[in-house]
Amino acid sequence: MTVKILLEEKDIPRQWYNLGADLPTPLQPPLGPDGNPVSPEMLAPVFPMNLIEQEVSAERWIDIPEGILDILYRWRPSPLYRAKYFEEALDTPARIYYKNEGVSPAGSHKPNTAVSQAWYNKEFGIKRLCTETGAGQWGSALAFACSLLGLECKVFMVRISFDQKPFRRLMMETWGANCVASPSPETKAGQKILAEKPDTPGSLGIAISEAIEAAVTDPGGKTRYSLGSVLNHVLLHQTIIGLEAKKQLEKAGEKQVDVVIGCAGGGSNFAGIAFPFVADKINGADISIIPTEPTTCPTMTRAPFSYDHGDTARMTPLLPMHSLGHGFVPPPIHAGGLRYHGMAPLVSQAIVEGLLEPMALHQLECYEAASLWARTEGFISAPETSHAIAAVIRQAKQAKEEGKEKVILFNWSGHGLMDLTGYQAYQEGKLIDYPLPEEELQNSLKVIENLPKPSTAKTGKW
Amino acid sequence: MTVKILLEEKDIPRQWYNLGADLPTPLQPPLGPDGNPVSPEMLAPVFPMNLIEQEVSAERWIDIPEGILDILYRWRPSPLYRAKYFEEALDTPARIYYKNEGVSPAGSHKPNTAVSQAWYNKEFGIKRLCTETGAGQWGSALAFACSLLGLECKVFMVRISFDQKPFRRLMMETWGANCVASPSPETKAGQKILAEKPDTPGSLGIAISEAIEAAVTDPGGKTRYSLGSVLNHVLLHQTIIGLEAKKQLEKAGEKQVDVVIGCAGGGSNFAGIAFPFVADKINGADISIIPTEPTTCPTMTRAPFSYDHGDTARMTPLLPMHSLGHGFVPPPIHAGGLRYHGMAPLVSQAIVEGLLEPMALHQLECYEAASLWARTEGFISAPETSHAIAAVIRQAKQAKEEGKEKVILFNWSGHGLMDLTGYQAYQEGKLIDYPLPEEELQNSLKVIENLPKPSTAKTGKW
Repeated sequence: MTVKILLEEKDIPRQWYNLGADLPTPLQPPLGPDGNPVSPEMLAPVFPMNLIEQEVSAERWIDIPEGILDILYRWRPSPLYRAKYFEEALDTPARIYYKNEGVSPAGSHKPNTAVSQAWYNKEFGIKRLCTETGAGQWGSALAFACSLLGLECKVFMVRISFDQKPFRRLMMETWGANCVASPSPETKAGQKILAEKPDTPGSLGIAISEAIEAAVTDPGGKTRYSLGSVLNHVLLHQTIIGLEAKKQLEKAGEKQVDVVIGCAGGGSNFAGIAFPFVADKINGADISIIPTEPTTCPTMTRAPFSYDHGDTARMTPLLPMHSLGHGFVPPPIHAGGLRYHGMAPLVSQAIVEGLLEPMALHQLECYEAASLWARTEGFISAPETSHAIAAVIRQAKQAKEEGKEKVILFNWSGHGLMDLTGYQAYQEGKLIDYPLPEEELQNSLKVIENLPKPSTAKTGKW
Repeated sequence: MTVKILLEEKDIPRQWYNLGADLPTPLQPPLGPDGNPVSPEMLAPVFPMNLIEQEVSAERWIDIPEGILDILYRWRPSPLYRAKYFEEALDTPARIYYKNEGVSPAGSHKPNTAVSQAWYNKEFGIKRLCTETGAGQWGSALAFACSLLGLECKVFMVRISFDQKPFRRLMMETWGANCVASPSPETKAGQKILAEKPDTPGSLGIAISEAIEAAVTDPGGKTRYSLGSVLNHVLLHQTIIGLEAKKQLEKAGEKQVDVVIGCAGGGSNFAGIAFPFVADKINGADISIIPTEPTTCPTMTRAPFSYDHGDTARMTPLLPMHSLGHGFVPPPIHAGGLRYHGMAPLVSQAIVEGLLEPMALHQLECYEAASLWARTEGFISAPETSHAIAAVIRQAKQAKEEGKEKVILFNWSGHGLMDLTGYQAYQEGKLIDYPLPEEELQNSLKVIENLPKPSTAKTGKW
């Protein structure tokens, strides 16, 4: 049995897939502070126009420029693996396949969009990108991309991570990025918070505010902002994962996929593996498509579909999405990349349409799954990725109970070599499952109660 | 241009190459304390007999068992890359190729032999392996291998690294290994040193003593010791790298290789990429084969070819090798894996035969090279690997000066994601080039002056 199903570079997908073109109900637009749809022009100080055009595109297939492929070849096509050692350990009749996105230089799927965004910005004449990062996966991916394309890169890293994860910062600096702790004295937003709370650990909301401010206030007009998930064009760039997987499954002789699984924080990793299969489902295929999330941040399994801000500080337009409320602060689970209050509009809309079957998991079950994975497949998984592996185990056990030869595909979104403290806590018996803070959640949901609802909003085509 | 030259699993080499069979002068045997050759039986408490047989084998080609290939498929064949982005930055007519060994679960070439050794031990009925580790690359590779094969693994990790590199220890524990700081209270050797110096930072020499003691004193007789470099069978297992590279270069249309480069600490990484090409050189091919080392630990460029102990504590037999003396302590450069006083007998003998052209480099040049690499090829290199990259740059520049289209191959032996503090020092301008401690070196060489010399030793075929 072949363990790794490879694709040659010449067989790499040459178009991204835009699920927006196929959703039964068209995606509703973001709304500005006045409740009216945001026009593409209003986003121009934040993003380059070529990416804004992609954000609002209704085209099903969008060509991947050769210049982007030329950079992606460093690790793409990524290998598809048959998880045969894991299957043996589970004694399951299921055939489990996974895409290994950990082979990228930054160690996760994030560079797929980082490279694409940096390339489009450069094409548009932009010289410098600003972004925020929490645990550091996204910041290091963008630093990597900017380095190869000769763009300057500025990363506002949440202070507590900046202090606790010096290696992630060192990765960014090795790629030439300028990384500062957020809140920083470099922006008005940062100065204001530092004046009020000099010892604040920072937050992703604050870091987003700083990054956007730093982008839009650049006097030369050659700086833009870059976001690592949630938006349509970000999800689009990740679909190369699922498109490659389709070719590779065909090469492996699989005619049908029964289950597709990906973990979802902002939604881009899940979308990357799943959207090409959602297209099949819309066309009648019998597939279970499962985005997974932490029980402590149940955006997909508990939150209403509402308009809400993408950031805590309410700098962004209102997005139509499943949201726990922009003020919700999830318990400190190790999977930092899944601690986001909202969910990408495209993923949210697909849930509303009944195309997806979201699943919530506690972190102990996930670390148990990732430990079995490390001892069978050999690779040490990112804490986020463990939320996909745990769901795979549930599916594989179900297949065994039912005696079915299911084909399960999931995205192994990244390695966990920079995030081993969760494994330490697990091994020492100190890892706990936090309860969902129900009262905080209800309070947070109250705040967004009066925001427009997608079904009643003044929508319009962009 | 294709960036990654892939091999399918079915095309993986099915035999290892044993340079010992082709060296013009046969390798001389290790000597015991009495100056007589060590018999294979004398090594039986330390290593399983199937590996001892491999250690002394005169066969040119040795079959790789299917059970080992079955595990190696997780990351082998590893991709061969054309470093075209690096070439562009250097504006060189040279064509530069590199094997990416960083794709293994442990992140380096070390698992090639870790898996093989664990497999042979298991075949021999062994239940538990003991080893030492310095910075942690080898310990984590063996932990990984034992985990997949269901062997127990005990790692004695030099205390200063144990304290400074908790992530490497966590990797080992995630793979189920038991890792303790050395010196430990678990062995007599450790107890003795702790009684004398409770606050000692430890050393590789002490850790080797503890690991061997733990292996040979196991009352059940089901424990053996495992070494990550230096020995013939360890180098043998790494030759799969160079054998794959040959097939891949042929696939890339290259008819001839002009330069082969690998960094060498104990010698296994260099041997892995180079030995199949040394065979060509013995048969008349015009190839420069360059093992690289730190100027501060100039085993190949300054040390005599002598018999010496493999460890500081003189527990091991005497090996015929280039050695700075078993008491030599190199300055604290970041490339911990290259801070070894000796060099593998097979590599040493090839140097004596005039088959290799060793090169010594200072660490500042190496970090400068690795930084250019990160910003062009994208991958962040291990500090050891940077010693190969710097040599590649020298060769590429020379090719430019001479206007020659040289083909350069080197082994990108591992990623540096767990070892970023050297990059930090480099970026902050704090990285220094240590002088070679000449006086200490002369004193260390004096100690081995009276040990037998390979040319005059009572040698004999094993």
